Amino acid sequence: MVTAKLVDNIWATRKSESLNGLKLMLAEVICGKRAGDIIVVADIISAGIGDRVIIATGGAARRMIGDVNVPIDAAVVGIIDDECQLPE
Amino acid sequence: MVTAKLVDNIWATRKSESLNGLKLMLAEVICGKRAGDIIVVADIISAGIGDRVIIATGGAARRMIGDVNVPIDAAVVGIIDDECQLPE
Amino acid sequence: MVTAKLVDNIWATRKSESLNGLKLMLAEVICGKRAGDIIVVADIISAGIGDRVIIATGGAARRMIGDVNVPIDAAVVGIIDDECQLPE
Amino acid sequence: MVTAKLVDNIWATRKSESLNGLKLMLAEVICGKRAGDIIVVADIISAGIGDRVIIATGGAARRMIGDVNVPIDAAVVGIIDDECQLPE
Amino acid sequence: MVTAKLVDNIWATRKSESLNGLKLMLAEVICGKRAGDIIVVADIISAGIGDRVIIATGGAARRMIGDVNVPIDAAVVGIIDDECQLPE
Repeated sequence: MVTAKLVDNIWATRKSESLNGLKLMLAEVICGKRAGDIIVVADIISAGIGDRVIIATGGAARRMIGDVNVPIDAAVVGIIDDECQLPE
Repeated sequence: MVTAKLVDNIWATRKSESLNGLKLMLAEVICGKRAGDIIVVADIISAGIGDRVIIATGGAARRMIGDVNVPIDAAVVGIIDDECQLPE
Repeated sequence: MVTAKLVDNIWATRKSESLNGLKLMLAEVICGKRAGDIIVVADIISAGIGDRVIIATGGAARRMIGDVNVPIDAAVVGIIDDECQLPE
Repeated sequence: MVTAKLVDNIWATRKSESLNGLKLMLAEVICGKRAGDIIVVADIISAGIGDRVIIATGGAARRMIGDVNVPIDAAVVGIIDDECQLPE
Repeated sequence: MVTAKLVDNIWATRKSESLNGLKLMLAEVICGKRAGDIIVVADIISAGIGDRVIIATGGAARRMIGDVNVPIDAAVVGIIDDECQLPE
């Protein structure tokens, strides 16, 4: 998984029907060599803009959503506690 | 998923039979560290050249197409709304 | 998928039995940030050295070969038409 | 797999229920071009901060945990012996 | 798949039980942009240090081992013939 900060929502009116009702957000990777990378992630645990989160990719993202047929490859799996310090 | 701009169609007369009738396009990643990366993507939601799209990769792409046996690893899953601002 | 140019054959006499008879080639990615990356790919559509091809990776490669148990992770899925112009 | 050093624990009180009780740690890749990359990994073999470990990603991580439905994509699969020298 | 040179063995006494008896080695990618990258790979075809090999990743590695439940994501699938010239 990677650590990232949620920077915004992203809206797509025309999309896969299976994505209807699924919140998509823009996340910016915040640690290590990939810092600054932007990923579109699904969120079902009510994370908000500015939250630092753990993101899982690939099949793990579909397990997070609980439906392996939804066409996503990245999802928030946890919100990092405020007091948790991350390396740069 | 990643955000990308569709830059062109791509044509392959000789290909896997299972790709017959499937529209393939060239997409350029537009945000974050991967900006400028070129990906070949399948599209079934009638996206056009110039559209900004969300692309899912790996097994998610096959879920998007609705046939897990088609040999693709990237697909358009949504067209980003015009008013949506993306980070650079 | 990525666009690549087939640059050579690659030979491995000692290999997985399930790879017997499967043509393996060296491909060089030709567009975007990954240009210059070298991938070993399986080919079952009679592509040749010098051909520009579309390469699928991961499970998609095994779908292309038609046997999900063959231990490959990249395969040619189409030969790009000569008149097709690619970005740099 | 990649070689990495465990640098810290990471805490997420709000997370997928299926992650409850699973220890998550921050790992820094220590060899080759990816050195310095930070990954969030699951650990079930009691590795500790400072340990050099082998990390498997993707579906392999879920096999390590023994539950393919847990939404993780990286896990410690072994602790590298102290006397083992690694390249830089 | 990628081309790599096996540079050393790697030992992990504490590891997943399912890895017992499986030879793990350090491989250095030798062609293209990823040259210099270090990967930990499983080997069941008796490759040795110094051998140039083809490495498959992800689910392909588990197919190579013949047990999709072993938590590995990279394996040697072939030893490149000595007379085979590789690009730099």
